[in-house]
Amino acid sequence: MVRRSGRRPGNQDTRTSILEAARASFAEKGYDKASIRGIAGDAGVDPALVHHYFGNKEKLFLAVMNAPINPGELIPQALSGPRDQAGERLIRLALTVWDSPAGAAALAVFRSALSNEWTARLLREFVVTQILRRAAGEIIDDPAEAPMRTALVATQIAGTMVARYVLRVEPLASAEPEVLVAAIGPNIQRFLTEPLPEVFKQP
Amino acid sequence: MVRRSGRRPGNQDTRTSILEAARASFAEKGYDKASIRGIAGDAGVDPALVHHYFGNKEKLFLAVMNAPINPGELIPQALSGPRDQAGERLIRLALTVWDSPAGAAALAVFRSALSNEWTARLLREFVVTQILRRAAGEIIDDPAEAPMRTALVATQIAGTMVARYVLRVEPLASAEPEVLVAAIGPNIQRFLTEPLPEVFKQP
Repeated sequence: MVRRSGRRPGNQDTRTSILEAARASFAEKGYDKASIRGIAGDAGVDPALVHHYFGNKEKLFLAVMNAPINPGELIPQALSGPRDQAGERLIRLALTVWDSPAGAAALAVFRSALSNEWTARLLREFVVTQILRRAAGEIIDDPAEAPMRTALVATQIAGTMVARYVLRVEPLASAEPEVLVAAIGPNIQRFLTEPLPEVFKQP
Repeated sequence: MVRRSGRRPGNQDTRTSILEAARASFAEKGYDKASIRGIAGDAGVDPALVHHYFGNKEKLFLAVMNAPINPGELIPQALSGPRDQAGERLIRLALTVWDSPAGAAALAVFRSALSNEWTARLLREFVVTQILRRAAGEIIDDPAEAPMRTALVATQIAGTMVARYVLRVEPLASAEPEVLVAAIGPNIQRFLTEPLPEVFKQP
């Protein structure tokens, strides 16, 4: 076989086939249970080719979602550093991404999750379980509390996105990011590290 | 004219005409600028008939939105009572409505606002400006701070709805309401009544 130079449409087809198989597999099985091997089988290619094109499952998922950023890198970065300002850094990161040119695409993924069950499931599994919880596990004292604390953080982050970018409630929608960091950061910090005795009391 | 007994389809037509005119008028002008008089004119009926069928503008709006509850009555009730527990009462009210049979309809209005600009605008104007801000004005010391404080409350309430009912993030989605009242109430209370110096510093 003679290899032609320049654009290779065959590769583009393979890439598209993998993305389609991945989308279907994530939709059917969820993020946790979908596998590179299974997706490769569905696309009729070798798993090595999936790794070649997309790296790992996390990056394949981000490609399926057309994600403009990789929260798996950005969120752990934001949570590292002084523990008592982690809440501020987390909301600052969210506002920085959403106010940036990548914000429109991030918002599109989020809007899709609000109206589409499979996107909702993936956003839930991927962002909350895979990233936020894993990263927050490093600054939450009791690992048993991490799932609830992280879910509470998600309420405040998602709600800021809804109020600022979707409902566009003023004066919040036009506020300077650092005003919102000062307003919202301490509330996220409470969810992350402050005592919540009533929440974790045994039933 | 002989008045027939039993169902009067003409009335149903009139009611529908008014609702359609109201929907168009709210969409075009927003909640504040739409008027009973203008809507009646568009529907070709006397304003008195609009009052007869729907009461006031607030109730006409709720009918257009198919709202299962009247937040204009429930929110002020929740905010009355001991000032330092207003945050808890507000999130308890939200959870009570959403967990009730009326919750599905309330969620439908909210989902619609997330994907539809006119519903978003109306939800923003009606719930935040008309109700929450007016009611919160009674427990927020400085009226100049009420708009931002209320918008911040909206972030936490909207985010709880998104995480619990739309994304269904566990363990939050299955948590007992009172667990969430204990977790989230104090954060809403901070937005309502605690000092937020950096937020309101003059630029």
